[in-house]
Amino acid sequence: MSKFIRVNMTTRELAIEEVPEQYLALGGRALTSQLVADEVPPTCDPLGPFNKLVIAPGLLSGTSAPSSGRLSVGGKSPLTGGIKEANAGGITSQKLANLGIKAIIVEGKPAGGDFSLLKITPEGAELIPAGDLAGKGTYEVTAICRRRYGDKVGVITIGPAGEMLMLSAGVTNNDSDGNSSRYAGRGGLGAVMGSKGLKAIVVDCPKTFDAPVKDPERFKAAAKKFAKILLDHPVCGQGLPSYGTNVLMNIINEAGALPVRNFRFGRFDKAGEVSGEKLAEVAVARGGKATHACHPGCVMRCSNVYPMPDGKVCAPIEYETAWCFGPNLEIGDLDVIAKLNYICNDVGLDTIETGCTLGVLMEAGVIPFGDGQAAIAALEEVGKGTPLGRIIGSGAANAGKVFGVTRVPAVKGQGIPAYDPRSCKGNGVTYATTPMGADHTAGYAVTANILKVGGFVDPTKKDGQVELSRNLQVATAAVDSTGLCLFVAFAVLDNPEGLPTIVEMLNAQYGTALTVDDVAALGQNVLKVERKFNREAGFTRADDRLPEFFTTEDLPPHNTKFDVKAEELDEVFNF
Amino acid sequence: MSKFIRVNMTTRELAIEEVPEQYLALGGRALTSQLVADEVPPTCDPLGPFNKLVIAPGLLSGTSAPSSGRLSVGGKSPLTGGIKEANAGGITSQKLANLGIKAIIVEGKPAGGDFSLLKITPEGAELIPAGDLAGKGTYEVTAICRRRYGDKVGVITIGPAGEMLMLSAGVTNNDSDGNSSRYAGRGGLGAVMGSKGLKAIVVDCPKTFDAPVKDPERFKAAAKKFAKILLDHPVCGQGLPSYGTNVLMNIINEAGALPVRNFRFGRFDKAGEVSGEKLAEVAVARGGKATHACHPGCVMRCSNVYPMPDGKVCAPIEYETAWCFGPNLEIGDLDVIAKLNYICNDVGLDTIETGCTLGVLMEAGVIPFGDGQAAIAALEEVGKGTPLGRIIGSGAANAGKVFGVTRVPAVKGQGIPAYDPRSCKGNGVTYATTPMGADHTAGYAVTANILKVGGFVDPTKKDGQVELSRNLQVATAAVDSTGLCLFVAFAVLDNPEGLPTIVEMLNAQYGTALTVDDVAALGQNVLKVERKFNREAGFTRADDRLPEFFTTEDLPPHNTKFDVKAEELDEVFNF
Repeated sequence: MSKFIRVNMTTRELAIEEVPEQYLALGGRALTSQLVADEVPPTCDPLGPFNKLVIAPGLLSGTSAPSSGRLSVGGKSPLTGGIKEANAGGITSQKLANLGIKAIIVEGKPAGGDFSLLKITPEGAELIPAGDLAGKGTYEVTAICRRRYGDKVGVITIGPAGEMLMLSAGVTNNDSDGNSSRYAGRGGLGAVMGSKGLKAIVVDCPKTFDAPVKDPERFKAAAKKFAKILLDHPVCGQGLPSYGTNVLMNIINEAGALPVRNFRFGRFDKAGEVSGEKLAEVAVARGGKATHACHPGCVMRCSNVYPMPDGKVCAPIEYETAWCFGPNLEIGDLDVIAKLNYICNDVGLDTIETGCTLGVLMEAGVIPFGDGQAAIAALEEVGKGTPLGRIIGSGAANAGKVFGVTRVPAVKGQGIPAYDPRSCKGNGVTYATTPMGADHTAGYAVTANILKVGGFVDPTKKDGQVELSRNLQVATAAVDSTGLCLFVAFAVLDNPEGLPTIVEMLNAQYGTALTVDDVAALGQNVLKVERKFNREAGFTRADDRLPEFFTTEDLPPHNTKFDVKAEELDEVFNF
Repeated sequence: MSKFIRVNMTTRELAIEEVPEQYLALGGRALTSQLVADEVPPTCDPLGPFNKLVIAPGLLSGTSAPSSGRLSVGGKSPLTGGIKEANAGGITSQKLANLGIKAIIVEGKPAGGDFSLLKITPEGAELIPAGDLAGKGTYEVTAICRRRYGDKVGVITIGPAGEMLMLSAGVTNNDSDGNSSRYAGRGGLGAVMGSKGLKAIVVDCPKTFDAPVKDPERFKAAAKKFAKILLDHPVCGQGLPSYGTNVLMNIINEAGALPVRNFRFGRFDKAGEVSGEKLAEVAVARGGKATHACHPGCVMRCSNVYPMPDGKVCAPIEYETAWCFGPNLEIGDLDVIAKLNYICNDVGLDTIETGCTLGVLMEAGVIPFGDGQAAIAALEEVGKGTPLGRIIGSGAANAGKVFGVTRVPAVKGQGIPAYDPRSCKGNGVTYATTPMGADHTAGYAVTANILKVGGFVDPTKKDGQVELSRNLQVATAAVDSTGLCLFVAFAVLDNPEGLPTIVEMLNAQYGTALTVDDVAALGQNVLKVERKFNREAGFTRADDRLPEFFTTEDLPPHNTKFDVKAEELDEVFNF
């Protein structure tokens, strides 16, 4: 039986519900967004009793489909005020799927009192007082839960930032090694979890790849074919498995799209010092790993394990994190980046948002640009809950308001990631228009703009960017619903067999007769549902715009502005 | 000649322009809002080069019309993100009108460098470097300017809060005694002035009541009649001139509509200790004044002069300020209130917003409720620009985001003033719907709800509140355009001769043939212009709502919730 686990934190009631028919064909982002749209009043306070936290594995999660272990977390975002889905790797999605759990729905709000832990096993679910975990970092919480409940459990948790309702707080879960840093980071869903008084969810299930499949043979053949499609692609099969996502550092720098000094320049003279190549070299020399799978069955293994000078380990350092704590702050030191990354992971903050926020603080003169030790000291304030720590935890847009900064890289209140919209204009269109707030993963036009994957659209020109972003946003909404890692898109965009093979896996698993068009329609529908929620929450066209300075300041070295017109942006969702 | 003074702070160009015909019949709020709507892109950054600061006397300002010296300040608000008009008494409005200046328009943004001072005399206008005034409080700036330019000048200025671009910063000007605390406080227009690099505007004009009037005899008769209408009314002629606005403290407390402990209760056991009666007693005993005119020619004289124990003088302590630093924080000590008021005046912050923000900080546990010395210490951080000071200066809504507080009394980002919307529901409708963000002056339903002026509408019931708020908002938009103090409304609402006499003054002054209906149409048009701007800036119905907790928490002693429905609120602007 496919089921929802519904936990009411006001009454502490726990219900296991049969999944209503209209949700059976949904998973991941499609399911979290539909449930949020159906059950959460769009104008409610995101940290109040009427918001809900929805956690769902993807449609293919828990099967042998390669790289399909993404976990979606959804709710109304306290950072953007709109609907939110953030997803992460880690082992929990596969465990939930193997327990037959399509979604966990956390609702209500306790009047006060201790934090709780939700324990889910094959025998059922249970809400347990967890006051002893309150205030602890995610590393310690995960270690305690693995000691207490077994070292194979998946632990979904928040750090002190989420407990303190900081708007940049993320929700994390662990990989097979017990490393707790697989973050559904963006949009402050950790604060939503904190507002529910829920510190952690422990998922115990011995199975990983045994979610029910209607036609196992057909599925196996399709999964095998899909693995080959991935491995045959230069990005999925070579670039990512060799250097991880940070292979992008030199590439984006070369393209002149690397935001430097809070989006003032497009190239960084120390990019090589913080690149994936350098990271691999240092990590391996110190006994770490240049490559690592965030969940079992991933063939791309784009993660890494970076030993720090203090003996601790930061795993992973993603490109966007290396960017936001590196070039964005004019810091050219991987050890500083690792330390900032580690603090964020432990205290429970989204790294991209935090890096953007530190950039705003540097813009305001609170910390000098390039001063890694000052940045570390400032970030350490977060766990203490000091006024400065609170500001950092509230994200870039709020920090900009507090410090009177106008050069704030954020859309819908969410910080802009590692690709400057003036020299990667397709991403600019995505940042402006996605219902998620500025988010590179929502329509990753770096593909055609810079990597020449899925064709080529000149990144410095506006022509073709709206169509590119639209197609990518639709495809992404669909991929985010399958549980597949978004990185499969590199191969899928270049290989005409890619999408049909995903559809073949879905049909073999569910006994459906979906076509490629149905999957595109699913993606469109997800976006429509999300846009409707946002409209009712108060979003308008005025929210689908980039900050003013991107349209008035030239970005070196290409000296381009973001010039996609308002009326062109309004054509992204023309379906 | 009726003229605009236009100052471009990018180029330092200064132009004196003949007023285009479409603006001739406008003044005060009608003029600032129309100019902002015509010249400011609604989606622009409020602290960027495309916003403008518009300062305008009212239509009747500078004549012998009683209580007509209000000065309107307009722009796009950095606090609300919408259009803003805030107005104040003081002597500058009359001086501008006597110089024939219908508006000062400040535009552009300097690349950097020192602050400037705009000097306006009968001979012309001049932009003067004023780096020596930067960082100084408004008391000192005003004193320096009066020494430098003569003790009769009007000085419009901002404090360090405005220079630091704090979103709660106000724009102030002085009364005849040189006291600099006549604030156009709300909505952060002080930050807009700060963003323009403009520290002060000095207006030198020997005349006060000699603005051109087409038919002086007819005008004189009407003005005399209007003065009598005011003096004959119990509020305008007795209540306000005896105890000032703070006469409301005991009245609102008695009505159970006094927000206490960040809007948890409707009555305060120490209300009497901070009431207007007590204030008058203490002020007079210390050699101050229980009553005082904020500008020449005011017959209501609702202001006061409160000597503090440290020898300094706080003038005035308004009811809303006494409330926000008193009952709102559970502080029952007038000297503490005066000190908080004084710091705000000097550093340049809106008192209402700051009181709401301190309430949020107390809600968050940063300062204990009732701890006056802790509140003073926190407020003193503002001038130092520390992280805590910055948070305080950013207003209640932002402070709530930074500290994860859900009980934040704010609409459209602006703090809710001194009348709880659950037991003064007409004001609740105004807070929710006015284009200004939560603002009691925008449609002051305390009249019919509590004072039984202009009829009676039960304050604890929703019936009739939408219509009441609508009528008051329309009338207010018109009154705010004349330069008349809003308090004339008490008399105008009760005396059928009131409004026709205002119309008679306008017709005598301008040689027009306006009717009472034309004045109502003017008010409606102002609201339409403002609502259109806000719509284009991204506001929707979702912004015309009160915070969630007013609809879910009962307010003692009446134990009422705010229950005006969304669809009823959407009927306020049905014209």
